[in-house]
Amino acid sequence: MDVVEAEILFRPMKRIALPNGDVLRAIKATDTGFAGFGETYFSYIHYQTIKAWKLHKRHTANFICPMGKVKLVIYKEHSRGNPVKGYPKEIILSDDPEQYHCVTIPPGIWYGFAGLGKPTNLIFSLLNGEHSLDEQLSADVDTFPYTWNVNHD
Amino acid sequence: MDVVEAEILFRPMKRIALPNGDVLRAIKATDTGFAGFGETYFSYIHYQTIKAWKLHKRHTANFICPMGKVKLVIYKEHSRGNPVKGYPKEIILSDDPEQYHCVTIPPGIWYGFAGLGKPTNLIFSLLNGEHSLDEQLSADVDTFPYTWNVNHD
Repeated sequence: MDVVEAEILFRPMKRIALPNGDVLRAIKATDTGFAGFGETYFSYIHYQTIKAWKLHKRHTANFICPMGKVKLVIYKEHSRGNPVKGYPKEIILSDDPEQYHCVTIPPGIWYGFAGLGKPTNLIFSLLNGEHSLDEQLSADVDTFPYTWNVNHD
Repeated sequence: MDVVEAEILFRPMKRIALPNGDVLRAIKATDTGFAGFGETYFSYIHYQTIKAWKLHKRHTANFICPMGKVKLVIYKEHSRGNPVKGYPKEIILSDDPEQYHCVTIPPGIWYGFAGLGKPTNLIFSLLNGEHSLDEQLSADVDTFPYTWNVNHD
């Protein structure tokens, strides 16, 4: 068990209403907790589908949902398969101005996404290092005792 | 007139097909021509609408379209309102795997977007410096002699 738990950050971002299409602010180099720039990518999560589980050994990951709505589930292991107290954590990420946030996840924590919006949803990821297979772990969706409940919103 | 013209880069990006939602690779720190990380934001461009014109005095801008299809128009001035030879340039950015690209625009060049996809389109921007009003110029859509033709695709 960790003595010092690295912080999960969850902060609101600005969505600016404009007649020809809104502007949604995203990550800046001067943001509190910004851990550096390595790589960005997008991931679609279709409605009622799940992408889980993944863990970065060394990288800090930032996630934003600029289109749609997803449930992000964060799972920290105490011992094999058993969660640390307070986990799993569920976080809603959405393009709704009231729910438009950025979440930052330190290394060593499992995470997964479920798509809540129809017909699909988009996640933007910014990592402080470059993608490599030896840096990340994957586990089947049924590895941890978590019920996703994607059949109702 | 510039003696050495800063380069506009246009390079294909990978879109990886996955059953629960595709992954679209975006900008990496090790990309050729990567000019540094300052700020990111998203901008929706609704169908048949225009967002133009804008110019960054000091910043290099990178644009990707992870959802929909837009026309990016790049306008370089020779003298007030008169384009440098070869301008305006028109570039299509789209989430279509065949058209999924990143474009990099150096400072000192005007640009604008038109939304081609229904009902809306999303642009991801990554700049190598932080947004400030003294760093960017704006001009009305009719400032330059360019016909946008947004009424037919």
